[in-house]
Amino acid sequence: MAKSEKYAVGVDLGGTNIKIGIVSQKGRVLEKLSLNSKAEGGPEKVVKQIKTGIKEILSGNKKKIRGIGIGAPGVVSTKKGTVENPPNFPGWTKVNLGNIIKKEFDINCYVENDANAAAIGEMIFGSGKKYNSFVMITLGTGVGGGIILNRKLYRGEIGAAGEVGHITINYNGPRCNCGSYGCIEAYVGNNYLISKVKSDLIVSPNQKILKLVNNDLNLLTPLIIQKAAEDGDTFSKAVISEMGEQIGAALASVSNLLDVGTFIIGGGVSGFGKPLFFAINKSLVARVIASLRNRVKVLPSKLKNEAGIKGASALVFYKS
Amino acid sequence: MAKSEKYAVGVDLGGTNIKIGIVSQKGRVLEKLSLNSKAEGGPEKVVKQIKTGIKEILSGNKKKIRGIGIGAPGVVSTKKGTVENPPNFPGWTKVNLGNIIKKEFDINCYVENDANAAAIGEMIFGSGKKYNSFVMITLGTGVGGGIILNRKLYRGEIGAAGEVGHITINYNGPRCNCGSYGCIEAYVGNNYLISKVKSDLIVSPNQKILKLVNNDLNLLTPLIIQKAAEDGDTFSKAVISEMGEQIGAALASVSNLLDVGTFIIGGGVSGFGKPLFFAINKSLVARVIASLRNRVKVLPSKLKNEAGIKGASALVFYKS
Repeated sequence: MAKSEKYAVGVDLGGTNIKIGIVSQKGRVLEKLSLNSKAEGGPEKVVKQIKTGIKEILSGNKKKIRGIGIGAPGVVSTKKGTVENPPNFPGWTKVNLGNIIKKEFDINCYVENDANAAAIGEMIFGSGKKYNSFVMITLGTGVGGGIILNRKLYRGEIGAAGEVGHITINYNGPRCNCGSYGCIEAYVGNNYLISKVKSDLIVSPNQKILKLVNNDLNLLTPLIIQKAAEDGDTFSKAVISEMGEQIGAALASVSNLLDVGTFIIGGGVSGFGKPLFFAINKSLVARVIASLRNRVKVLPSKLKNEAGIKGASALVFYKS
Repeated sequence: MAKSEKYAVGVDLGGTNIKIGIVSQKGRVLEKLSLNSKAEGGPEKVVKQIKTGIKEILSGNKKKIRGIGIGAPGVVSTKKGTVENPPNFPGWTKVNLGNIIKKEFDINCYVENDANAAAIGEMIFGSGKKYNSFVMITLGTGVGGGIILNRKLYRGEIGAAGEVGHITINYNGPRCNCGSYGCIEAYVGNNYLISKVKSDLIVSPNQKILKLVNNDLNLLTPLIIQKAAEDGDTFSKAVISEMGEQIGAALASVSNLLDVGTFIIGGGVSGFGKPLFFAINKSLVARVIASLRNRVKVLPSKLKNEAGIKGASALVFYKS
């Protein structure tokens, strides 16, 4: 161990799992653990889980820890360290998670929205290392985002900036759960995507996919579509290519507005890999204004599975 | 005249007219003149016109001038003072307008993109005075924009930020002259709007409008639509209301991305007045994410006809 290397604890607070790890300043995960979130138990239960988890991971640790970073869903006030109305956490209105953890462990604690933490993670450890400005997009159940401008997280008026998922690509398009229409999330968010593909498959059955799901379309997942596409299935390839076109259209709006050319894409659905990235890039290049055409690039996230823990720990290295 | 009041020269470089004025720090226009742009004569001719115009307006002036501000179309490097490829200025690749004017008059000269200058003008003199952050939109032949974040102009990577007009609201929508599809400009930019309304009127003739244009649809302008709407014409009202819905959809994307709630709208078409603002606001409120719903507001520009000169002169007060 190099004497000068610094360490931090990263906490990735999710509705399904709470992941906690010790991460070095170089982005190496030394230890990690995962707990099933007892979100239904309300904030007290969850806070207790976080405390227990941090104690557990610190027991036996001999590294000097610089601080604790927490990536949480919902609107986060980084100054106060509060987390407000995180989706999938019932009974949780506003909790001062930062103060609670700081007091408990007598160490600096930094709280940030999880999508923003992911962007900071990519800037500190990942694909964003060498870019001054970029927009991070996370493709999963939802479509999240974080904006880095001149090596700083852009948070907006109340810290809610970066909602790339709720950029509309068709103002008369499908209803989105945010209340608007045609948001990119309403096209490529996991559930929307699967439900659209299912209804297409009911109209025109596809033997390759039906085989992969044992004739039960309820088993359809993005991974199944990916497998079928890799096997050469034309329908599945078209699904991925259309997704790319749609994502590229949303990113072109972002690029034209912000004059930022670099995008980093992570999250489950980005597992569609090269064909998806190819399609996003093609659509983006075709749609941005001339002065951006040679500057746009779409990069895959580097942090992958440990993005949550690394992003949260990066808050410590970013802010201290 | 108060001893402490400061003055600046503002130059609004347009493809049709070059407008020049002396403006006080409070936004009062002391003197102004307008020249027909001789854009077809190339940059040398235009630069000569600017010089002559400034000399003219300064002759007899006894106020101490703090500097000269120039709002120009195209991509502007504020550091270097260069103006690159301004649309409607043939033969103009890159001209260091800032240096030329600075040398000629031995005074500070600030050059900025015209849409950005308009945003700075609203911040210093107009509807943006009391807002930390807002997005300015100019509705005219094109749809331009400027982004103010924490009382500073946000310029992006090369100064091309704020292209609100090229946010798509329908990725399969009408072709835009930027090369993309369904940009808000391709719906509400003057020419697109008029051509769409014309073709609707050919299919379903409208007596009120036909009367206003003496049966010649080539005379159709936004002003005619406005007049017909004010006379209670249902079709014209619907045109304005649809425009508002479309603009609101684009602004919702901006708001969700930037977490900025305040919009200021200027330019010719914003003359549609209250019905348009009502429709934009309704669409915007319905479409933004929950955390923005109570914060969004759409304000008319205060600078109106003198927006160009005032915005350009505001560059001096903003930067010096």
